Amino acid sequence: MNIKKDIKNLLVEKPLKLDCGKTISNFPLAYETYGSLNQKKDNAILIFHALTGDQFVTGINPITNKDGWWSYAVGPGKAIDTDKFFIICVNVIGGCMGSFGPSDLDQETQKIYGINFPVITINDMVNAQINLIDYFGIEKLFSVIGGSMGGMQVLQFVSNFPNRAKTAIPIACTSSHSAQNIALNELGRQAIASDSNWCDGDYIAKNSNPNKGLAVARMAAHITYLSKKGLQEKFGRKLQERDDLKFGFDADFQIESYLRYQGSVFVDRFDANSYLYITRAMDYFDLSRKFEGNLSKAFKDTKTKFFIISFTSDWLYPTQENKEIVIALNAIGADVGFVEIESDKGHDSFLLDVPEFLKALKNFLEKSY
Amino acid sequence: MNIKKDIKNLLVEKPLKLDCGKTISNFPLAYETYGSLNQKKDNAILIFHALTGDQFVTGINPITNKDGWWSYAVGPGKAIDTDKFFIICVNVIGGCMGSFGPSDLDQETQKIYGINFPVITINDMVNAQINLIDYFGIEKLFSVIGGSMGGMQVLQFVSNFPNRAKTAIPIACTSSHSAQNIALNELGRQAIASDSNWCDGDYIAKNSNPNKGLAVARMAAHITYLSKKGLQEKFGRKLQERDDLKFGFDADFQIESYLRYQGSVFVDRFDANSYLYITRAMDYFDLSRKFEGNLSKAFKDTKTKFFIISFTSDWLYPTQENKEIVIALNAIGADVGFVEIESDKGHDSFLLDVPEFLKALKNFLEKSY
Repeated sequence: MNIKKDIKNLLVEKPLKLDCGKTISNFPLAYETYGSLNQKKDNAILIFHALTGDQFVTGINPITNKDGWWSYAVGPGKAIDTDKFFIICVNVIGGCMGSFGPSDLDQETQKIYGINFPVITINDMVNAQINLIDYFGIEKLFSVIGGSMGGMQVLQFVSNFPNRAKTAIPIACTSSHSAQNIALNELGRQAIASDSNWCDGDYIAKNSNPNKGLAVARMAAHITYLSKKGLQEKFGRKLQERDDLKFGFDADFQIESYLRYQGSVFVDRFDANSYLYITRAMDYFDLSRKFEGNLSKAFKDTKTKFFIISFTSDWLYPTQENKEIVIALNAIGADVGFVEIESDKGHDSFLLDVPEFLKALKNFLEKSY
Repeated sequence: MNIKKDIKNLLVEKPLKLDCGKTISNFPLAYETYGSLNQKKDNAILIFHALTGDQFVTGINPITNKDGWWSYAVGPGKAIDTDKFFIICVNVIGGCMGSFGPSDLDQETQKIYGINFPVITINDMVNAQINLIDYFGIEKLFSVIGGSMGGMQVLQFVSNFPNRAKTAIPIACTSSHSAQNIALNELGRQAIASDSNWCDGDYIAKNSNPNKGLAVARMAAHITYLSKKGLQEKFGRKLQERDDLKFGFDADFQIESYLRYQGSVFVDRFDANSYLYITRAMDYFDLSRKFEGNLSKAFKDTKTKFFIISFTSDWLYPTQENKEIVIALNAIGADVGFVEIESDKGHDSFLLDVPEFLKALKNFLEKSY
């Protein structure tokens, strides 16, 4: 990994004190933009990506040569309209698409960080990204938007910078990572660490690659992104290019073949240590913790207009957890809208062609602009 | 593994034609019994174990020195009362507690089977077990009972032997393994196969052990046995023997520590290849397949009295899938009772101290005897 071609970078000189206590400076922040910033600089939207996303939101991702991860939602005339808005998306720190991460060289030791990279948090991620907003000279973003871990960054951003976003759209997320979600992330981490090619995180220096463990982590996660009903309707017990069961361990069922494929393509674009670091950041996320468990206090004095979106079949970040954010905002009289979208596509709904969702997103943005 | 001390065995001489086409004979069937068979031989209950269970239902398991897996339900005066009933439980073929399985020696090649062991099915499992019932001279069992994969065996048994069980209690199961459940099993299999110590299934001969992969498989499965709500109430975001986050990859959260422990103790008692074979049998289970997709036909002419039990928070074998069995039985006028038990303990509810469940089980058995 660590492919740097076609990647825009801002070198952040200003020191950033991380939650772990360490301070970093002169670190790269890889980003992409779409559309044009207007003269008033009031049409900028900062999109935050999820666990395995990156800055290439729409169009063709120059690294993978596949569609950007939010091509359904972002583009000319789409819900997040690049003809109207200036879109910024930053690869999170800890990531592997050009921002400061565990596959970078530690200038002090001249060794690749690996698991000597500092553990980062969602708070660290957004505190890094504000540098890019300052760099563009944007006083107030029109919106901050993200799904899943992107939604956590939305919440953290508004809490940290109450005057820097006019609107905020956290989608399919939570204000506090649940025990089940910590467990699922831990499963992924253990799958990676169990691969002997992980070499205690030192695989790059050892010219090794924990691809098998990373693929298993991805398969586990992928199951959680889909709903039971959606899987049943799409795959059921359909067989994979065969008329009958083969009584062996090859992929008899389409769902098996599909999962194996998801695992195998993922390892080509993602770094195992980044997977460890980013899942850790998600698990550490508990926005109310600094506010004596009172989530409302995280948004004290906010003037931001919120629009919160959940999906009926999302069992990873169910409606209930999204509603808790709505309740906390209502409790302080904040401007907050909420919609639960009917969808069988599970947590992945926010990434897919779910017309009711895309319409709601478009309507909110257009009416708020 | 393959510990044979303290294990009762029946050597089945009679050939058994497996679904895969192969025929086996002279194979061991490891079993345990509790209580006494009465003179009329009408008080016998055959209990079927689940994926990682074994024949040691209650009391102290002589291999693990821990309580048997169904100690809450089975014992003197308990729901399945060993003072009244004669309980038989057989280690499934493909298993690793003494019955014919992949860690056995292939007499033909004088090599350990490994993945040259034939792929077995739920149908094969019950067809093997009827030999033990014949051996005891039991014409008609008072009941066949099992949860999860044990419930699938209940359904298959009654379908294959419509006159051999007076009552049947399938618990927290399905008549057809769903796409999500196939996916979850495939995840476990991939975790094992990804461990380089698996050696393509030949680890015993190579004096190796895919313990890391098997532990990951177990962790994945364990998450699915519990409910989101149950995990949240039991663990939430509680820290493991520390006052604050440590900003590392050790187990900061109790749920992480708990999962790691579940993985580590499992590998001491279970064989990785057996895990592959038994999950495969579950995935292949689709009882209506031989009956043109009509589940009712699987129970044509049944005189067995059914009692079906599901749990509200079981997302692996949800109430809906259990109800489909009820509906199929009602459609042919079979005698069928059904109860959905309120519980936050997820799929594992049937193994745990859930009083309402145990009471329902006891009542049904006592009123039917």
